Amino acid sequence: MSITFYDLAGAENGLRFSPYCWRTKMALLHKGLDFETVPWRFVEKDVIAASGSGHVPVIVDNGNWIADSWEIATYLDRTYAGASLFGDDTSRALCRFVTTWCDTAVHRAIRPLALLRVMQVIDEECQAYFRESRERMLGMTLDEACADQAAARVALVETLAPAEQGLSQAQWLGGTDPCYADYALFGSLKWLHALGGSIPFPPDSAVSKWFERILDLHDGYARKAETADF
Amino acid sequence: MSITFYDLAGAENGLRFSPYCWRTKMALLHKGLDFETVPWRFVEKDVIAASGSGHVPVIVDNGNWIADSWEIATYLDRTYAGASLFGDDTSRALCRFVTTWCDTAVHRAIRPLALLRVMQVIDEECQAYFRESRERMLGMTLDEACADQAAARVALVETLAPAEQGLSQAQWLGGTDPCYADYALFGSLKWLHALGGSIPFPPDSAVSKWFERILDLHDGYARKAETADF
Repeated sequence: MSITFYDLAGAENGLRFSPYCWRTKMALLHKGLDFETVPWRFVEKDVIAASGSGHVPVIVDNGNWIADSWEIATYLDRTYAGASLFGDDTSRALCRFVTTWCDTAVHRAIRPLALLRVMQVIDEECQAYFRESRERMLGMTLDEACADQAAARVALVETLAPAEQGLSQAQWLGGTDPCYADYALFGSLKWLHALGGSIPFPPDSAVSKWFERILDLHDGYARKAETADF
Repeated sequence: MSITFYDLAGAENGLRFSPYCWRTKMALLHKGLDFETVPWRFVEKDVIAASGSGHVPVIVDNGNWIADSWEIATYLDRTYAGASLFGDDTSRALCRFVTTWCDTAVHRAIRPLALLRVMQVIDEECQAYFRESRERMLGMTLDEACADQAAARVALVETLAPAEQGLSQAQWLGGTDPCYADYALFGSLKWLHALGGSIPFPPDSAVSKWFERILDLHDGYARKAETADF
């Protein structure tokens, strides 16, 4: 039985932009698992209530509801054979660190570039929810958070310095093969990419070349995904 | 034959404060290797010229000169048996990432807290070198870089968010055992600690408790080390 995966969608079903859901999609693909995505919107808390969470990603596998991208990844890796997402125990701990770095430093840097784009791809009811919840979290308006796009692009490049340096030495953050750390950072950048934004690195940079490589992984799944056009 | 290790020292031989040298010391201790430290000052380029580098750490092992903390760590791990510094190949790649994160984000956050302290523990000739080289690198005076200590402490806590979150889930960045990623971040914080600065986390934080655990490792080597008192 294939896994059901609740995936954040825009007003149009095809536009999938959540960084956390992208991690989970890449993890499912890496493990070679069949899954069916169900488009889900910010306000549809009832639909995923059985997971105990109000946020996606959420999966249902053999009747088990599992929420949270990290919990899902570790569940998939211990439940299913196939290529490990993590490597050894040390790698799993370090993947967790990289994931948390994405959640904190990288997302802080991407938010000014992404938040107003999100507002443009979701419907009116979701806009009200998104604006209220994010403005409360940030302690400022979305317009204030996104006021200086040029500064935000510079800050994102500065934040990604360890990735640019690491990827100039190896094909993947995980070395010779992609691991969950690659998917975590990819999710963050795919967030911006899906919303029609560009990654602020030149095409010959290590980060850009790595991003293109991930778009090509797993039969080009992420490359084929819809992106916003504005 | 024991390994010779050129270790940055203050005007007093006993004060060792380089973040990069602390990584190397912890790596040598982790591998259980005998080493003899030689105090070295910023201006003593001639002494380590055979390494091809103008900076420490530098080691001499069986007549081989090796510079750069990452190169030394990978040399030690592939040359000597005993506990691995890295785990598997994925872990080594991720340790490199964490090390680069320390070199970039963490050091950018610590510099405003550390640079003027360095000036107080080195002699006059080294002060001239240090001020000129760092002001050129930063594009501002040391006084400008260190102007707002309170803001710097807030920024350091923000920067270390992934470490605080990771270490609230596990004893070490490497999970159940310390790995080179732990030593890389420890070196960064020991820099400030050796210079008499305090880590801007409360004692019951995950980062503070982890820092105390590393001070106790290897017979308390780092805890016994001299710290500046001013």
